Amino acid sequence: MQPLILKGNIIFTPAPTTFSVHANSFLVIEKEHIQGIYPQLPEKYRACPYHDYGNNLIIPGFCDMHTHAPQLLQCGLGMDEPLLKWLAKYTFPEEGKFHDLEYARTIYRDFIARLIASGTTSAAIFGTIHLPATNLLCDLLAEKNFTAFVGKVNMDRNAPDFLLEDTQNSVCETEKFIQKWKQNKVITPIITPRFAISCTAPLLQALGELAQKYQLPVQSHLDENEAEIAFVKELFPNCPTYDAVYKRYHLLGDTPTLMAHCIHVDENIIANLKAHHVYPVHCPLSNINLSSGIMPARRFLNAGINLTLGSDIGAGNDLFIPRSIVSAIQLSKIYQFTHPDCAPLSLSETFYLATKGGGKMWGKNGSLESGYLANCLVIKPHSPQVLSPLDHLAQFLYYGTPKDIQAVYLRGKLSDLSPSK
Amino acid sequence: MQPLILKGNIIFTPAPTTFSVHANSFLVIEKEHIQGIYPQLPEKYRACPYHDYGNNLIIPGFCDMHTHAPQLLQCGLGMDEPLLKWLAKYTFPEEGKFHDLEYARTIYRDFIARLIASGTTSAAIFGTIHLPATNLLCDLLAEKNFTAFVGKVNMDRNAPDFLLEDTQNSVCETEKFIQKWKQNKVITPIITPRFAISCTAPLLQALGELAQKYQLPVQSHLDENEAEIAFVKELFPNCPTYDAVYKRYHLLGDTPTLMAHCIHVDENIIANLKAHHVYPVHCPLSNINLSSGIMPARRFLNAGINLTLGSDIGAGNDLFIPRSIVSAIQLSKIYQFTHPDCAPLSLSETFYLATKGGGKMWGKNGSLESGYLANCLVIKPHSPQVLSPLDHLAQFLYYGTPKDIQAVYLRGKLSDLSPSK
Repeated sequence: MQPLILKGNIIFTPAPTTFSVHANSFLVIEKEHIQGIYPQLPEKYRACPYHDYGNNLIIPGFCDMHTHAPQLLQCGLGMDEPLLKWLAKYTFPEEGKFHDLEYARTIYRDFIARLIASGTTSAAIFGTIHLPATNLLCDLLAEKNFTAFVGKVNMDRNAPDFLLEDTQNSVCETEKFIQKWKQNKVITPIITPRFAISCTAPLLQALGELAQKYQLPVQSHLDENEAEIAFVKELFPNCPTYDAVYKRYHLLGDTPTLMAHCIHVDENIIANLKAHHVYPVHCPLSNINLSSGIMPARRFLNAGINLTLGSDIGAGNDLFIPRSIVSAIQLSKIYQFTHPDCAPLSLSETFYLATKGGGKMWGKNGSLESGYLANCLVIKPHSPQVLSPLDHLAQFLYYGTPKDIQAVYLRGKLSDLSPSK
Repeated sequence: MQPLILKGNIIFTPAPTTFSVHANSFLVIEKEHIQGIYPQLPEKYRACPYHDYGNNLIIPGFCDMHTHAPQLLQCGLGMDEPLLKWLAKYTFPEEGKFHDLEYARTIYRDFIARLIASGTTSAAIFGTIHLPATNLLCDLLAEKNFTAFVGKVNMDRNAPDFLLEDTQNSVCETEKFIQKWKQNKVITPIITPRFAISCTAPLLQALGELAQKYQLPVQSHLDENEAEIAFVKELFPNCPTYDAVYKRYHLLGDTPTLMAHCIHVDENIIANLKAHHVYPVHCPLSNINLSSGIMPARRFLNAGINLTLGSDIGAGNDLFIPRSIVSAIQLSKIYQFTHPDCAPLSLSETFYLATKGGGKMWGKNGSLESGYLANCLVIKPHSPQVLSPLDHLAQFLYYGTPKDIQAVYLRGKLSDLSPSK
């Protein structure tokens, strides 16, 4: 089989503070993986054809580590409302519609098309409580060769009737979901209690057991909002902190764990998350839209924690990860006003969070180093003027739109970017 | 002459807290002005053809009240740098290039094409110190029927040599600029001292006299950054505050005055700005990118001040005003964390700032009320699903891109949106 070879200005972040720039170089892909980067093609590839992308950038695709597929239509709606009103007016009625498989098909197709056209090549995705719709979401993602953790959401309390599951049924459908997908190459099932508030202790217990039994990762929400934290305390009076609830039921680091938000955390909680190798997901657009607060991202980085980035649509208002990259930088600048010891995040650090930082959840993903999954993007210049590759990247991240993405490769396969509508 | 008639879902903000929604209605334009909105066409127009935009929105075009045309290429570059390094490394070398008229033509054409394609239909624009390039900017804007205040920038100290003017020459060229444009229908010359730091007292004095002599508006920067404020204090030891410097030279409210930023202001300064009928320009993207601070926008609104909105590119990273609308809301939510008495800005308030709030500088502009300039946009749905007109608007503002703008009318004339590159 012929290797796939792309030529252009190649940039990635092997480490948070380092952009690695290879101008006018060749990226060689063998099957699904990066073989290497060369200024000149080595002898063995010299006869192979290659795609010459000229002055365009070649960068790793984005890893969106917290996003709600059924909330696509909500992007930007009801952002003047407080959290609980927003959930009741927009989110729950929308998620309720996913018992209808045809409705799910329309939205999930659109979601996946937009996700890919936005340059996201890997994601950790919440579905809904509905098993058929969540299976469909996986089918559609697998069809596109899209690397994803997908969760069937579990909720057996504190939600409207039409979104509540019977505890036993919730566990049983989750196990069916796991069994259907556990051998899949691109889709990994992920245990997804919505959050401690919407799950009884027996449900959390059973979900922790499933995670153990099948050695599966876990995703949920943690320390997003002060009212939420107080409610968790009330529901689980024997757990000293919110994270302790998940820990108690083997849902915090016993297997790889993504926890979205982690805003209201003190040094002890940060130390716990570090000890349990948790991957916190910074969702800056969501956190600011819902007035949740500012995550102390610098403290997580200083502690050497595996910080990642997420769009969190619909509370986040955009699937296009560069919006979250810029928002993360901007929030860190504001955070420094009141916490002068916390330096702002740099462009390379946030680019790293959005690529290799999240990609680590899959092993070698989110970078263009040898052996990594060949998930990558080709970016056109936003201006007709010639910029250095790094300025070109900065302009794309700060000023670009999905329109500037010329090509998306998913595990070495060129994706069709024509709109789904 | 036939009236121009557009049919669609019409939305505008007659007041900051009110969206006026006219679903499936007719917008009648006579020459350059809105004649009226009708659910059914009145008898006299019944035989006229009209453009049926179906489910699309028709909204006022955006008024960008602070933007630097020569900084287009800088969007998103150097945002990790502190202000002074950013100015020295990016802004000044870039502005220096505008002595070359052909360079200016390339950039200004691109700037205007992007401005219009982004849905901005009126703007207050900084040029550079160069008279020929600034005249060219006006020519190119006038060609497009674009309503603008345009300023030849004045600087006679504290800038690199290649951007410094001789004081007398600066005044003389400014007067030539005024005389060339003072009778123009769409372009209004505006007195534009860059800021107090870059202008000597004699230059400010002469500029104040020109503003008086020709009864022209003024634009500049005020209270953006603490180091800047301290430097102004040092340069003008006899003025108790920064705003007092401009006031002393008749550059603060003796004629209509736009002042960008106004971040570090106390109640006395706010009262002064109110008393002098100043239009402060909120530039949220710039303020956050340069870590300048958060403007107390709610305090300005509470004081009944004419607050407006600006992109401030290149410190702001996007010409597309919806990015500034959303950023203004987001910053106001963060501001409330530390100032609980300041409620966040609502979507209607920020939409008002971006349209009628800024438009007031021209009289009747920035709304779709009868008698207003016919500057308006047609917006396609971002999702294939049918939303209410207000949800459609919210989704466009939060999640849209310039691609969602189907048509731009500048003073009743349909604009060509094909890219300039």
